[in-house]
Amino acid sequence: MAQAIPEKYLDLLKKKAFANLGTIMSDGSPQVTPVWVDYDGKYVRFNSAVGRVKDRNVRRDPRVSLSILDPENPYRYLAIRGRVVEITQNGADDHINSLTQKYTGQPVYPYRQPGEVRVTYKIEADKVSALG
Amino acid sequence: MAQAIPEKYLDLLKKKAFANLGTIMSDGSPQVTPVWVDYDGKYVRFNSAVGRVKDRNVRRDPRVSLSILDPENPYRYLAIRGRVVEITQNGADDHINSLTQKYTGQPVYPYRQPGEVRVTYKIEADKVSALG
Repeated sequence: MAQAIPEKYLDLLKKKAFANLGTIMSDGSPQVTPVWVDYDGKYVRFNSAVGRVKDRNVRRDPRVSLSILDPENPYRYLAIRGRVVEITQNGADDHINSLTQKYTGQPVYPYRQPGEVRVTYKIEADKVSALG
Repeated sequence: MAQAIPEKYLDLLKKKAFANLGTIMSDGSPQVTPVWVDYDGKYVRFNSAVGRVKDRNVRRDPRVSLSILDPENPYRYLAIRGRVVEITQNGADDHINSLTQKYTGQPVYPYRQPGEVRVTYKIEADKVSALG
């Protein structure tokens, strides 16, 4: 059951706030890693590459959790539990460049490895909690 | 198999850096919440209260993950996967006050609810990754 993100907290998805993404390892244990995120008006999106731990994790189990703290006030935050509902390479190169622009001010992602295949993941929120 | 936290990154556990704690819900999905943490020389510790979601989660499944970003440089971070090896009420009131002092500069935890029973959780690190 999708739940909307309150308008009052959408700024957290627009500003340069890191998200901490929780996924499930193959043994059922949790993994948390910082990710860049944005919001396409319907889904929260992040970007990774084929074969990375979080790529393998969400292909196996699409359930994820995100914690996003306001960098200007860590007692204001947004927590989202949901599912990755789309995994696509379409537009993923433009998407990582757009995230790079958002978070670093540079137009092109500088950490690309040879042969790396970028992937965009779209998250539908099932449960949204906000504080502050 | 316990793994030591590199000395170079211990400052992240001493400064006012929030940790994002991943735990496992009863349905096996991930939960991520920001927590205050400290380091007792052997274990990374956080504090919660009996009956909270993360309290119930780690009593059911002690496996956790922590992501700690340097507030002065988000591209410097520490990721820990491990297990809660001790859950105790002993000293937990002093511990939450000590964390309050560390993170807010105030000597006493101000958000206490009537009847709330504080708990300290000690995490042994199994896998430590650091960047930056």
